[in-house]
Amino acid sequence: MAGAGKLGRDRLCNDPPIFHAERNAVLRTHDLGSLRSEHIGQTVTLAGWVGRRRDHGGVAFVDLRDASGVAQVVVREEEVFHGLRNEYVLQVTGTVNKRPEGNENPALATGEIEVIADKVVILNTSEPLPFQIDEHVEVGEEARLKHRYLDLRRPGPARNMRLRSEANRVARELLHQRGYVEIETPTLTRSTPEGARDFVVPARLAPGSWYALPQSPQLFKQLLQVGGFEKYYQIARCYRDEDFRADRQPEFTQLDIEASFVDQDDVIELGEAIVKALWQLIDVEIPTPIRRMTYLDAMAKYGSDKPDLRFGVELTELTEFFKDTNFGVFKAPYVGAVVMPGGASQPRRTLDGWQEFAKQRGHKGLAYVLFKEDGELAGPVAKNLTEAEREGLADAVGAKPGDCIFFAAGEKSAARALLGAARVEIGHRTGLIDPKDWAFVWIVDAPMFEPAAAAVASGDVAVGGGQWTAVHHAFTSPKPEFLDTFDKDPESALSYAYDIVCNGNEIGGGSIRIHEREVQERVFQLMGLDKEDAETKFGFLLEGFKYGAPPHGGMALGWDRVVALLAGVESIRDVIAFPKSGNGYDPLTAAPAPITPQQRKEAGVDFKPEVKSESKPAAKPETKSE
Amino acid sequence: MAGAGKLGRDRLCNDPPIFHAERNAVLRTHDLGSLRSEHIGQTVTLAGWVGRRRDHGGVAFVDLRDASGVAQVVVREEEVFHGLRNEYVLQVTGTVNKRPEGNENPALATGEIEVIADKVVILNTSEPLPFQIDEHVEVGEEARLKHRYLDLRRPGPARNMRLRSEANRVARELLHQRGYVEIETPTLTRSTPEGARDFVVPARLAPGSWYALPQSPQLFKQLLQVGGFEKYYQIARCYRDEDFRADRQPEFTQLDIEASFVDQDDVIELGEAIVKALWQLIDVEIPTPIRRMTYLDAMAKYGSDKPDLRFGVELTELTEFFKDTNFGVFKAPYVGAVVMPGGASQPRRTLDGWQEFAKQRGHKGLAYVLFKEDGELAGPVAKNLTEAEREGLADAVGAKPGDCIFFAAGEKSAARALLGAARVEIGHRTGLIDPKDWAFVWIVDAPMFEPAAAAVASGDVAVGGGQWTAVHHAFTSPKPEFLDTFDKDPESALSYAYDIVCNGNEIGGGSIRIHEREVQERVFQLMGLDKEDAETKFGFLLEGFKYGAPPHGGMALGWDRVVALLAGVESIRDVIAFPKSGNGYDPLTAAPAPITPQQRKEAGVDFKPEVKSESKPAAKPETKSE
Repeated sequence: MAGAGKLGRDRLCNDPPIFHAERNAVLRTHDLGSLRSEHIGQTVTLAGWVGRRRDHGGVAFVDLRDASGVAQVVVREEEVFHGLRNEYVLQVTGTVNKRPEGNENPALATGEIEVIADKVVILNTSEPLPFQIDEHVEVGEEARLKHRYLDLRRPGPARNMRLRSEANRVARELLHQRGYVEIETPTLTRSTPEGARDFVVPARLAPGSWYALPQSPQLFKQLLQVGGFEKYYQIARCYRDEDFRADRQPEFTQLDIEASFVDQDDVIELGEAIVKALWQLIDVEIPTPIRRMTYLDAMAKYGSDKPDLRFGVELTELTEFFKDTNFGVFKAPYVGAVVMPGGASQPRRTLDGWQEFAKQRGHKGLAYVLFKEDGELAGPVAKNLTEAEREGLADAVGAKPGDCIFFAAGEKSAARALLGAARVEIGHRTGLIDPKDWAFVWIVDAPMFEPAAAAVASGDVAVGGGQWTAVHHAFTSPKPEFLDTFDKDPESALSYAYDIVCNGNEIGGGSIRIHEREVQERVFQLMGLDKEDAETKFGFLLEGFKYGAPPHGGMALGWDRVVALLAGVESIRDVIAFPKSGNGYDPLTAAPAPITPQQRKEAGVDFKPEVKSESKPAAKPETKSE
Repeated sequence: MAGAGKLGRDRLCNDPPIFHAERNAVLRTHDLGSLRSEHIGQTVTLAGWVGRRRDHGGVAFVDLRDASGVAQVVVREEEVFHGLRNEYVLQVTGTVNKRPEGNENPALATGEIEVIADKVVILNTSEPLPFQIDEHVEVGEEARLKHRYLDLRRPGPARNMRLRSEANRVARELLHQRGYVEIETPTLTRSTPEGARDFVVPARLAPGSWYALPQSPQLFKQLLQVGGFEKYYQIARCYRDEDFRADRQPEFTQLDIEASFVDQDDVIELGEAIVKALWQLIDVEIPTPIRRMTYLDAMAKYGSDKPDLRFGVELTELTEFFKDTNFGVFKAPYVGAVVMPGGASQPRRTLDGWQEFAKQRGHKGLAYVLFKEDGELAGPVAKNLTEAEREGLADAVGAKPGDCIFFAAGEKSAARALLGAARVEIGHRTGLIDPKDWAFVWIVDAPMFEPAAAAVASGDVAVGGGQWTAVHHAFTSPKPEFLDTFDKDPESALSYAYDIVCNGNEIGGGSIRIHEREVQERVFQLMGLDKEDAETKFGFLLEGFKYGAPPHGGMALGWDRVVALLAGVESIRDVIAFPKSGNGYDPLTAAPAPITPQQRKEAGVDFKPEVKSESKPAAKPETKSE
């Protein structure tokens, strides 16, 4: 007792410098945001941060904020009020009063009342802030992340984190009700390439050996099916050491699911139930079943495997239409077009901008024809077309007077990608995309393989040294009709994979997996992993497949992206408590950072087994350490 | 369609080698364990693994197992039955029948029925198993972990994983109901020593820099309080690069909690509510409030800060009693005793065993006096005692005829530790410990600091180079009465910490934290971290404390140990899906393993900034990379 404060050095501000709250005092009796007119007349103790202050001379007002909300505190003693600064932490004891007539604040849940302070204890002080804590903040992201704890006091970021917590809860509850078991899988594991680089961790107790952080729980969740769990899930931290791409994080989270004795329809139905439950959190009712589209259709009509279906505007293939064209540019393996409604009136500068748009994406330009209101075709391409082409064009692409027709010609996938990008840009520029709209689609029947060179070009790491690599991943089953032929004709083989796309974002995906050792070995072989390689990298999976692996499949939802969509924010950084900025740097802790020579020595990083030479690592480092 | 099987290469076993289940067939209509007499007469499709098989000539029985349980399948066709082996994965379509009179199996939930198979499809085969899947397995742990997916098919391990999933759910639900927000904290972060070595991860995009895997979310959860979240929780993966100690894992899980504007009673009450809810999962009602004991009391009475209170048998201090003794051994700063009820009849060999027991713990031996049934004192020590000592001894220690009195003399904490260990052993040997009993206790008021040498001796890493290091951790607040004096008299200062102990296991703990920068700096200084050091290692926390950090505190429960206790297993490895064995080795994946020279090169491990020499790392590697 004896005046010692339970909180340590609590300061009563009208008796500086140090005063103590009574020992065993209740720290607070009410949450600020909970105060209503029903509390009028009650004595309450509150705790929170000082927001806005207004001195009206003789009476002063403090907006006191805690996690639950804000309430107005009236401070009558001038010397108390003058001791307060923004973001001081206060304990206030006082009486709840009705606000004087006309002073109510209907924008505030507590706007009918105010608290007349009897006693104000300063629990902690605050130096002037590096930036103000407002709904809108003007400082750069790096500064916000360096003081992320201040950024998180803002209403938006705080709301986002709470929404994320709710999303976790809703998904887990649904999975629990369906009999799914939550199982944690290891994060210090073996380096098993899955399309990106692994982060590696030196093992001090086995010098020269390294753990890897998992790119996903893929192999473990499959082994849990071999283990008979049948229904697994986990909200799992995953790691990918990728080159900087906008809005990627070196560590990210996925809702990871796997089940046995299921087919594609089962997994899709489960995915839809989860999505439905999640969007209900923001009062949006997603109609199910969600439409499905084949990968080939998506590429043909939208030039993308993640089409934004909030608007129409489909691509039209014109290869046949232009098969006898005289126009050199259109003498190509593929010619396609996309129509910009109302685009004929774009000024020259805007049309030049589209050329820049194409160039930034690695193309020469974006050919166009303006379909004038008077029916004339204008623009540099028009004069290269024959009379028949000019007459048939509008019909062929479905253009109306006043539209602009954009063309791409060349290699099919590249040309389609350009038209697909133009299509999305058209959607935004013309207002065809309603930002409040939600358009979901499952993309199914993706090709099993793509040329390894294409994967590497798009930034992935090809597993194995073969000519082909997996579009989805190496564990995805072929559709049954390609089971016998996928390694003879890899280009045609379709996989048992499904991705879910929302407003042009891939938010998740999965597949029915290979569960037979022999099929898995054929896939590895096609991807250029010889038996020894496959054994080294995936031997434990192949071993597991010997002992009665059940048919199984699953999916993963990219949790950061899902929550970002729910929160209505552009960047996944806005739904991560402590995100990294560019190149994996954390402005808050200044990680990564150098380690001490002792740490380096202890970690065994420089351990050289047997070989004396300083310049060469041990021979055959890929050999198993068993 | 056209006969292609949706599952890939499903094999109908009476038409080998390959047959296909009909496309779009339902994979199963019922879970095996759900079959009851109400299903009699129904046609069902089931899927699962072949357990026991019994051929009765003309009719054969298969115990088919899935995640839900086991049911008996009757196979009439000999050639079908003979194609089956243990752990084959089957799809069985058949009719549910009542078992013939007298053949019911009351030990089995499905014991009243059997399924007469019409069609048996082999979904996958199995090679002979490395060990049998039974309730009791005789192979070593290494073999079980190498094929952990088979081990997990056993009833016990499967049950443990499901229990763990339920424990997660119950804890989360309770925390949600109390307004706690689940927030994920980073795992690629800055190396901040917290009592053990950090695992470090080279950062490819910042060559020469490293991330560290967190030993706990401690600093982040405190910063979330600075961020105004007030109620945080997370089931968090944590990492400690420790030397091998029995039953430690390099990665482990804790239920991590932090809250603002709380005192010790608030956190303890929450912890008790969680423990209560968890133990209800195994139908045990824990009475609350759980008793509390001061750290000093626990050490004095039980020789341990994690006393097993399932039985009495307290230590007695005899320093005063022996203050004038002639017996040299007892001329010591501390003399204490513990009584073994009925121990006087122990044969000489057993008493020699106790000497071994003491030696293994680093002591010379364990002095004893046998208090014979006839009231005589026997044993080698007795003859060294004065008449007065002999007469007063039984009363002083509370021994009855037939008991054995064990003594330890010497430095107080070492002697008590030996008596405490002897006490637990006594509890087991005398049957005083009821293995079905549950005894919880909170240990409160621990000293704030201990000599750094003692911490290092017990295997921890002392933070800072000072003479003193934190018993709990550097962020624990002193109790208010020691706020002004803790750095002048660190030995006497008590901390605002609380640990929860169950049956002699520390299952969790926490503290009220320091929330004032100046206090935190004084603690760092006492621990031998100078200003620059503190800034380098914990600068971001100290920076956060500038801006209105609220009073806060929290706790963490060691989730692996909690679930192990609930599951009634000795080792935490039994409640981890894919645990590491000794020295952090994973027998399943053979991790850790060597990495390729390319991985090493890319990771930037050997990056040498500026300095040309091959032999020395860059100067001042501890400097921030900002």
